[in-house]
Order: sequence, then structure tokens, then C-alpha cells
Amino acid sequence: MPEIHIRDAEPGDVPAILRMIRELAEFERQPDAVSATEADLLRDGWGAEKRYSCRIAELDGAVAGFALWFHNYSTWEGRAGIYLEDLYVTESARGQGLGERMIVDLAQLAVRAGFRRLDLSVLDWNPARDFYHRLGLQQRTEWLPYRVTGAALLALAAKAAPAG
Amino acid sequence: MPEIHIRDAEPGDVPAILRMIRELAEFERQPDAVSATEADLLRDGWGAEKRYSCRIAELDGAVAGFALWFHNYSTWEGRAGIYLEDLYVTESARGQGLGERMIVDLAQLAVRAGFRRLDLSVLDWNPARDFYHRLGLQQRTEWLPYRVTGAALLALAAKAAPAG
Repeated sequence: MPEIHIRDAEPGDVPAILRMIRELAEFERQPDAVSATEADLLRDGWGAEKRYSCRIAELDGAVAGFALWFHNYSTWEGRAGIYLEDLYVTESARGQGLGERMIVDLAQLAVRAGFRRLDLSVLDWNPARDFYHRLGLQQRTEWLPYRVTGAALLALAAKAAPAG
Repeated sequence: MPEIHIRDAEPGDVPAILRMIRELAEFERQPDAVSATEADLLRDGWGAEKRYSCRIAELDGAVAGFALWFHNYSTWEGRAGIYLEDLYVTESARGQGLGERMIVDLAQLAVRAGFRRLDLSVLDWNPARDFYHRLGLQQRTEWLPYRVTGAALLALAAKAAPAG
């Protein structure tokens, strides 16, 4: 049986994490979307302001996947939760339960912390939707995600307050 | 002209914030969804582990709205962004531009911090969707939000690893 081990990411994992971020972007049909650098991931994972947490999945001792998450917040519950930004298993390691092990690991982390939510987003065509359904996640069909970015964000920030 | 002022929330605002969280839950047709207490909001806003940030909108010197947000993270960009969890203007203060001022304020905060995204979610029937469109936000139709919570989260955390 393959040996699966889930552990916290360390600064030395950053090159592997960035490589897997790029592989995931390719899978998500956005191969040119990744502008992140190793320096960015080091700063935001281990710098003065920690912006994300990351768990690494090892298969027989080799890095084979990652789960990168941050804290979200529920004003209804008055407590933080876990938002899973990226879950990825390298192609050669798929079908051996690493993804499920990482999700269960995060659910355990949430429960231990007293959180009541694990959230994520998935592309509408991604077969991982079945995987998430099987693990008890439910689609939140009534909530629509919106974003402003790029030139539109700059334009919004430059909007003058009405006189008054 | 009404005088609008946007400022950081302070611990003394927590009773007003919780009251507005409840009003927003009522507007969102989930009047019983709020279990948060003032102690929760104090701990998570000003305690050892800061879990959210909050801006207050004042109209002619009185609290009339709030914008509660946290940092999300983009692995593609290798930087944090702003996720706006709640934006609310009290009923009597609507139509005077407070919501727009709070969104512009957050866009400015994002740009100053070097962030490239402002994200939020809105209920499919909420007329605020037009407001967000007008300010340059776009619906991300291909990304579907999923969540596991309650008994399903506990069941997921209790899932045993397969033998091996």
C-alpha cells in the first residue's frame, strides 16, 4: 500500500508548491494566469504578515500534492472558518486517496479550532465536483461570487466622493 | 448635503455591528441564522488572533453602516486580496451613497496595500447585484461555491484514513 503523509509546508517546499500552482492553473485552462513568484509565496507564507497556510501531501516520501488555505470569517457564527483556495494532487499520484486525505485533514483542523465551515470554489466543468459532493460538501447555488480586479479596481479606487 | 464619514471600527462599535449583522441576516431571509455574540466579535476583531477588519460608515455623525472584510489569497497572483463578507447600510440611511463610499474606500485600501482583487458574494435575488455591476464588479459565473458545515463537517473530520 502506498504510504501517504500530510504535513505543514516549509519554506523549502516553495519551489514545489509554485510548480504545482502552475500545473493546477494549466488544468484549470488558465496556463498563463500565474504571475506569483517563489519570493511572493515565501513572504506571504512565512513573512511578517502570514497570508496563507499550506499542507503538503507526500506519497512514499515524495511531495505529491498540496492544500493551500486561509481563514475566512462568518459574521452569522461569529467565528473564523477555513477557505480552501487550492487543492491539488500531481497527475502521477492521483487515484490513491491523497485528495481525500487532505480534505479530511483540513476538516479535522477546522473542528479542532472550533470552526464550523470549510469552504471552497470549483470550476463548473471540473469532475472534482463529484468528489466534493461525496465528501459531504454542498453547492451554495444561491450565492453568486463577484470580483473587481485590474483596471476596474483602479477605476473604482479613483472614484471621487460626491461633493458634500 | 448629508455628511458621510468612513472610519475603522472600534471595540465600542461592536453592539452596533452585531445589530446590523442581525438586520442584514433578516434582509437575507435568514433571521435566525445569527448566533454570533458581542464577545465573539470583540475576540475576533481585537483579540490575539485578528480574524476580520471592519469599517464603519457614519451619516451626520451617527453609525449608519458597516463593511466587514478579511484577507483572501490568490495563488495565481502570489498576493492577498480583500474579501468583503458583509456590506450593510441601515434602512433609514439608504439612497445617500454610503454603500458606494464604503466600496470605494475598500478599493482604495486594496490598491494602497498592493492587492489586485476585491471579492464578495451576493444572493441571486438581491438587487445589490446591479449596484455591484455599476461599480465594475463582475460575476464569476464559472466558479461554484461549495461548503461543508455542521454534522457533515464533523463526519468528514471523523473519516478514518484507509488502512495502509
